[in-house]
Amino acid sequence: MSLKLYYAPGACSFVPHAALELAGADFEPVLVKLHKGEHQTPEFRALNPRGQVPVLVDGDTPVTQIVAICLHLDARFPQAGLLPAQGMARTRALETLLWMNNTVHPTFTHVFMPAKFADEAEAQAAVKARALGQYRQLLGELEALVAAKPGAWLGGAQPGVLDAYALTLLRWGGFAGIDPTTLPQTWALSQAFAALPAVARVIERERLQLNVYRPVAA
Amino acid sequence: MSLKLYYAPGACSFVPHAALELAGADFEPVLVKLHKGEHQTPEFRALNPRGQVPVLVDGDTPVTQIVAICLHLDARFPQAGLLPAQGMARTRALETLLWMNNTVHPTFTHVFMPAKFADEAEAQAAVKARALGQYRQLLGELEALVAAKPGAWLGGAQPGVLDAYALTLLRWGGFAGIDPTTLPQTWALSQAFAALPAVARVIERERLQLNVYRPVAA
Ligand SMILES: N[C@@H](CCC(=O)N[C@@H](CS)C(=O)NCC(=O)O)C(=O)O
Ligand SMILES: N[C@@H](CCC(=O)N[C@@H](CS)C(=O)NCC(=O)O)C(=O)O
Repeated sequence: MSLKLYYAPGACSFVPHAALELAGADFEPVLVKLHKGEHQTPEFRALNPRGQVPVLVDGDTPVTQIVAICLHLDARFPQAGLLPAQGMARTRALETLLWMNNTVHPTFTHVFMPAKFADEAEAQAAVKARALGQYRQLLGELEALVAAKPGAWLGGAQPGVLDAYALTLLRWGGFAGIDPTTLPQTWALSQAFAALPAVARVIERERLQLNVYRPVAA
Repeated sequence: MSLKLYYAPGACSFVPHAALELAGADFEPVLVKLHKGEHQTPEFRALNPRGQVPVLVDGDTPVTQIVAICLHLDARFPQAGLLPAQGMARTRALETLLWMNNTVHPTFTHVFMPAKFADEAEAQAAVKARALGQYRQLLGELEALVAAKPGAWLGGAQPGVLDAYALTLLRWGGFAGIDPTTLPQTWALSQAFAALPAVARVIERERLQLNVYRPVAA
């Protein structure tokens, strides 16, 4: 069955994008330009009425939600070790994956797109300010998780989806004025992950710069 | 290995609570009174430093994150059918579960605890107003998913974690001034789910009223 991934450069779709390359999957990457509103077109909304990347199309079936896509790929490519295979190691990894997806990722959305959460400019600024402080804290929590990692990678012995998500969340921090080198463990992990040949292909295809940090006026 | 679930009545911990009873698990339910701040005590924070329910303790290991707990229970009690066992049916169910967890649930948090998202009262009111409109829309999306369900239950032939989450999200709507009977498919599903003996035990233990709707001043 054919696999297609709809992705936007630097977006959260990096996570399944890296997973597909790590698994050695034969897939077609399809670029969606968010800044041109390509996720709002009728064609894209037919795939995902919620108008978001990532979308994985497996055969005829579109699948959305990063974590559902990752679990689908993990079941399809078990030898890739995208997540620990079983037991408490798997549960622990899922716990971190879920926290990244339901807590850290949405907190960045509040920083980056506060207009999704309030109508007035003043309220948007308040939402952004609060979320920025929280995002710093959450990256601090991530740094502690990386420091305590059970092996060379966040899931253990093999690189996988947790490392891809960590890289993405740290990279986003750069846009929010958080210098990634101030989180040395996560920065080292992200650099090592980016250097893997499979991941380097994704970074090249998405044309990503790993460190996008620029100081932000307070 | 012993199982303990830390839950708060009517909170999102209802989802793993129902899963444990559906699976016929031998577990100890532990009540956490959020309104008394019992999730902020040093004892509770030793289990979950993020200070939230649910926490499942399996043997000596605390596990947080609803979805990670549900996947852990699904692996431990495969015969319970808490989620479809495999293939695209499983992926589809996970997609819905993830959306409930990372989109619908946090939107309710914005309605219920806007002070988590902005400092000033005015900005909090703006956040709450926006989230309330979104929550109505999201429950409308849920209603469409329930109408299109692949069997008697949201996951197919067997009742499971999706039905438990749907009930919870619909019930919360009542606190936000959304009459559950205006979402007839989700209301019927929730009533049928609540009537299952296993689920009725949870509802009794948590002392829940299914319909908590009261009109809210505009
Ligand atoms: N809950 C979704 C979130 C996906 C998401 O946040 N996608 C973003 C890119 S990082 C997007 O497409 N944003 C465009 C928009 O929302 O307008 C998931 O876990 O997959
Ligand atoms: N991301 C967590 C969210 C858990 C959550 O929202 N818990 C709420 C109850 S529904 C809670 O404990 N709230 C207390 C607080 O945050 O102060 C999960 O998926 O398990």
